[in-house]
Order: sequence, then C-alpha cells, then structure tokens
Amino acid sequence: MATNERVFNFSAGPSTLPVEVLEKAAAEMLNYDGTGESVMEMSHRSAEYKQIIEDAEKNLRTLMNIPDDYYVLFLQGGGTLQFSMVPINLLTGSKKADYLITGNWAKKAYEEATKFGDVKILASSEEDNYSYIPKFKPEDIRPDVDYVHICYNNTIFGTHCNEVPDVGDHLLVADMSSCILSEEVDVTKFGLIYAGAQKNVAPAGVTIVIVRKDLVGKAPANTPVYLDYATHAKKGSMYNTPPCYPIYIAGEVFKYLLKNGGVKATHERDVEKANLLYGYLDKSEMFKPSVAKEDRSLMNITFVTGDPELDKKFIAGAKEQGMINLAGYRTVGGMRASTYNAMPLEGVEALVAYMEKFENENK
Amino acid sequence: MATNERVFNFSAGPSTLPVEVLEKAAAEMLNYDGTGESVMEMSHRSAEYKQIIEDAEKNLRTLMNIPDDYYVLFLQGGGTLQFSMVPINLLTGSKKADYLITGNWAKKAYEEATKFGDVKILASSEEDNYSYIPKFKPEDIRPDVDYVHICYNNTIFGTHCNEVPDVGDHLLVADMSSCILSEEVDVTKFGLIYAGAQKNVAPAGVTIVIVRKDLVGKAPANTPVYLDYATHAKKGSMYNTPPCYPIYIAGEVFKYLLKNGGVKATHERDVEKANLLYGYLDKSEMFKPSVAKEDRSLMNITFVTGDPELDKKFIAGAKEQGMINLAGYRTVGGMRASTYNAMPLEGVEALVAYMEKFENENK
Repeated sequence: MATNERVFNFSAGPSTLPVEVLEKAAAEMLNYDGTGESVMEMSHRSAEYKQIIEDAEKNLRTLMNIPDDYYVLFLQGGGTLQFSMVPINLLTGSKKADYLITGNWAKKAYEEATKFGDVKILASSEEDNYSYIPKFKPEDIRPDVDYVHICYNNTIFGTHCNEVPDVGDHLLVADMSSCILSEEVDVTKFGLIYAGAQKNVAPAGVTIVIVRKDLVGKAPANTPVYLDYATHAKKGSMYNTPPCYPIYIAGEVFKYLLKNGGVKATHERDVEKANLLYGYLDKSEMFKPSVAKEDRSLMNITFVTGDPELDKKFIAGAKEQGMINLAGYRTVGGMRASTYNAMPLEGVEALVAYMEKFENENK
Repeated sequence: MATNERVFNFSAGPSTLPVEVLEKAAAEMLNYDGTGESVMEMSHRSAEYKQIIEDAEKNLRTLMNIPDDYYVLFLQGGGTLQFSMVPINLLTGSKKADYLITGNWAKKAYEEATKFGDVKILASSEEDNYSYIPKFKPEDIRPDVDYVHICYNNTIFGTHCNEVPDVGDHLLVADMSSCILSEEVDVTKFGLIYAGAQKNVAPAGVTIVIVRKDLVGKAPANTPVYLDYATHAKKGSMYNTPPCYPIYIAGEVFKYLLKNGGVKATHERDVEKANLLYGYLDKSEMFKPSVAKEDRSLMNITFVTGDPELDKKFIAGAKEQGMINLAGYRTVGGMRASTYNAMPLEGVEALVAYMEKFENENK
C-alpha cells in the first residue's frame, strides 16, 4: 500500500495515526517480534505483553514528565466512564465539586457528576454557544469543594484553555482527551488528568488516567469494582484483561513521539499547522473562525462561511480532493479541521490551498 | 510473513485468531476498502464504520440465531464490568439473585453482586477445586429471585455446562466468555448472555451482551450512565465511541465463521479437536485429565502428570516445539490446552504427538 493513496483525515476522533506506526502494526500483525503470534493473540500475562504495557507507561511518563507520586492507568469505557469514575472516587470529603462548562462534553461530565454529590456550575459559556472559555476567579469556587473539573480542549467547538486555570489551592481535574501530548503541561498542577485515546494517542478503546496516588483508595465500599481506581492501580492496569491491542498502538505512538523530539517538538509542529490555517482564516473574506481568538484550539479548528449551502459545497469538494471529515459537529454545523499530532503539515497546506481556490471560485 | 513461522498458541485468552482474518487486517491496515484510511482512524460516525458495526451485529445474530426481542450490544470493560452491570440492571424486583459457583470467575461475579442486593450461593464445587459442575434442582432456587447466574464454561478449570441448567421459570444469566460461538445455544432460554471477546471472537477490549429487550431500562436513576444497558441499547452501541477496531476484528471473525459453515460446523471441528486430546488423555499412563468426564470443556482442556517438575519439563519442551501457553492457571498448576475455534486441528495433532513422545521418553 503506497502512502500516497491515503486521504488527509481531519476527523475529530477516532482520527489519523502516524503512517509509520500503522506500517509497523501491519508488518508484525501475524508475528510480533519473532514470537510467532499477533499482539492481538498474546496472553496479557506473557512476558512479551508485560514488556509492551510497561514500556507504554514508561514512555508516557517520560513524554509528559509524570512524577512518581502519580499512577498512570490504561482503562476502558472512554471519557464517558470517567465522567462517573471521577466523582465516585473523588467526592469523598464535602461531596461537593464545581464544574466549568465549556462545551457538550463538559456539560455531560457535570450532569453525570450530579448523581454522586453536590455538584455546581462554576461558569458557563453555553449561552454563547461555547464560543469562548468563561473566566472565573479562585474565590468563585465554593471553598470546601473536593475538586474543580475542566475540559482542557473542547473538541466540538474548537476552544482550549491556553493556560492552566487558577483554582487556588483546590484540586484540579481535567479532561484532556483532545489535547493530550500536543503541549507541555505541568502534571503537578492537576490531581487527575484523563483522556480517551482516540484523538492523539491510539484507536478507540483505551483511556489514559493520570492520578495522584493519595487520591486513590477512597471510593465507597459499594463501588462497582471496575470503577474504583484502586482496583487498577494495585494491579498495574492488569486487574482484568486490558484492551491489549489499543495499548500496544498507544505504545508505538509514544515511541514515535519520543523519536521525533517529544512533546516540545510535537507542539511546535502543531503550532505551525494551526498558524497556517488560522492565518488564512484571519485574512479570508469568506471563511470566518468560530471562536474567540484567545481561546483557539490547536487541535480542532472551527470555521464557517456564514452560508450553510456554501459550507456543504466546500465540504463535498474537499472530500473529492481527498480531505475528509471536515464537517462540523452534527449539532453545530460549519467546518471543523482536526489537526491532531499525526496530521502532517502537508495536509493543512493542501486544505489551505483548496480554501484559497474555493474562495476565488465562489466569490 | 509465512504462516508456518507461527506458533500454536494454546493461550486461554487473549488467544489465537484465524490467520485469514489477521492477513486481511494487515493488508487493509493503511487503507480499508479504498477509503484511504485505517479502520483505527475511521470516525465511528462515518458511513463506512456504521456498515462495519451493523454487519457485525447482523452476522452475530445470524450465527447465534438471536431473536429480534433481544438487543446485541458491543461494550467495554470485559466480564468484570458485567459482574456489576448484571446486578445493577437486573436486581430490580426482589433484589435477590442466586449464583452457581463453578470457578474463580463465577465466584468473582457472585462477590461483586453482593454489593447490590441479596445474593446467595445456589451450589458450589469450590471444596473440590471446581473439578465438576455442581448439580441443583429448580426448587433449590429461592422462589422470588430476579435471576440465576451461571458461568457456562470455566476457563481456568476446564469444566462446561453440557446442557442448559434447568432453572424452572426463573431468568437465567450466563457468562459465555470462553465458549460463545463454539456450540449452538438456544438464546431464548436466557435472559442475558455476556462474553468478553478475547477467546473466540476478537482481541481484548470488546464485550458482547445479548439481553432480552424487556429487561432493559429498569436500572436505578443514580446508575453510572455507562453501566445502564439502556444507554447503549438506545444508541446501537454508539452512545460513546465504541472500541472500533476490536469490533471490526470481531466482525471479520463472524464473516469467517459464516463462510466456514457457521456454529454447527465450528462445533464439529471443536469436538474433533477435543476428542483427539481427551482420547489420548483417557489412555495415557502419564497424563490425567483434571475434571469430571461429564463436565469436560471443549475449549479448555486441563490435565496433569501428578509431578509438578515433570509438568514444567513438559511445558518447556512444548514451547521449544512452538506450542506455547500450555501452563495451567497460576493458582492451579498442571497443564491447560485452550482449543478455541481458531486453533487448527494441526495444532492439537502436534500437541498429542509431542505428548506421546514425551511420555515414551519420560517413563
């Protein structure tokens, strides 16, 4: 399979993966590293698989500079299961938490948490269709909350916390599903970070949880065993059979990122891609960015022409040119180009060239 | 990669998959069916992926003859999450359930269920190291239970319910993780069947749930959203991003089974393999089967020499001959040959030939 038969896939997730990783996965599909078996067939208790999962954890720790007093867990159930696991495990003091509502997923996380404690909205941009990250001050937080929850990058709307919000001395929990490994973050500013892997890391089916060790082990006694972080922390994510193949691909992506300069260099490439597209949007007469400039996402770049019919024509034309999944989220409309780590610069260059051509031809 | 470089993998799960399926997965890793993308990269909302998951469900329904009044769900979290989801969703009347204890997993399912209701042991073979399936009569079941739970095939010990236990008019729930698709079962005799896919179906990371529709929708209001069957049933297993790649492989396995005669023909091949190995065990002077003859599993065949050092020598020698994962479960010892659907007859022939040679050389 020649690489040049591939499309540029701007999907918001599951999304494009590094070609080099896919080629390696294909080459060793029937025989991983001389074992005579596929990683899909490998006992999760085998020495070979143990090496795969341990290397994946070690390399993620290196990439994100994760201190020893944090667990790194590879779980199932996506962000959705974390929406429950976070409050079940962390609402152990006042049983209060404050949520910043910056998009659909943040709102779903909030709604789910209300099942488990006294959960309030800290601030919300819902009335403005989540087109910016609402500001708040540490003193707006209820003083005795167990934690504050934020969604660091809002996949649907294309906004992003361009600095870690100041929550004072409170514990901060962040959903980083759509921005993990695209920028350096100081893990020690967070009590817990979670991320569904199907954007920057791996195929769908594995969720990364990075959690400070002292926060684990306080879930109520009647917690479903899979939903207690302690279950997985005690067993190195091997309490039950983990999603072995998605973890293996995640591990290959981590190796690929390390080989290519780590998170710092990845971020520089992401900034270059985003600048190219936002630069064009800022000067275009036709295409307008959808969100506040100071809250722009590097990963999900949203824009509109203002004419839904023209949007449709643009998206259909792009598909003919091998640029797919440019339609905005189904409840939002317009366009969204997801430029995750694995999207090459050439993909964004092709997109901008097509936008210029489209704008000229449809004046 | 030549197939003959592959080992015979007797792992209890994750376990061997059909070579034809692995070859197809490798060939289309960078470009699925002309889409220009990997299934791993594909939006789960795309037309192409929708076709994959719908075909997988349709073909599983055909293979198992699943009636329309049952949902088929593809979930995450393995059997372990089902140990919680079953009682959370089904303990909605008397909040009582009776569990048949036939092995470690059945016991774990029971222990987990005690968190959610009045759960009792119906019968147990624990005192005899689970070497048989304990008998019970319908009148042994508490009259008002919401359901009876059984584990249909006990992976660790190598026992199997060779007919559907008579539970009278009670609702029957079965863990079929290690025997699904190896024998024809009358789905209508069960209220709910679940199976982690990593034995007969797919790589780890997807769990099949087959549940009668009238049983869904009664979970308590504070149930974590992912743990309510209704969440997934309403959305065709697409409430959140499903484990797309494991489901795709499951779908390819279903197509492979249909092409090769369906469950009936698969069962005949499984019986042929098991008869070959049990036949040798029944006449061997050295190797003894571990469980009661009437409860023998077709999928996990357990045996011992009676001498742990000789067992070790046997397992090490087998590995040198390219037959791997023959050691019994870590708390049980001895040997276990898992002869799932994808294990070719040649694998069992090679194992028996080696056993004969080993027995002759170690008299």
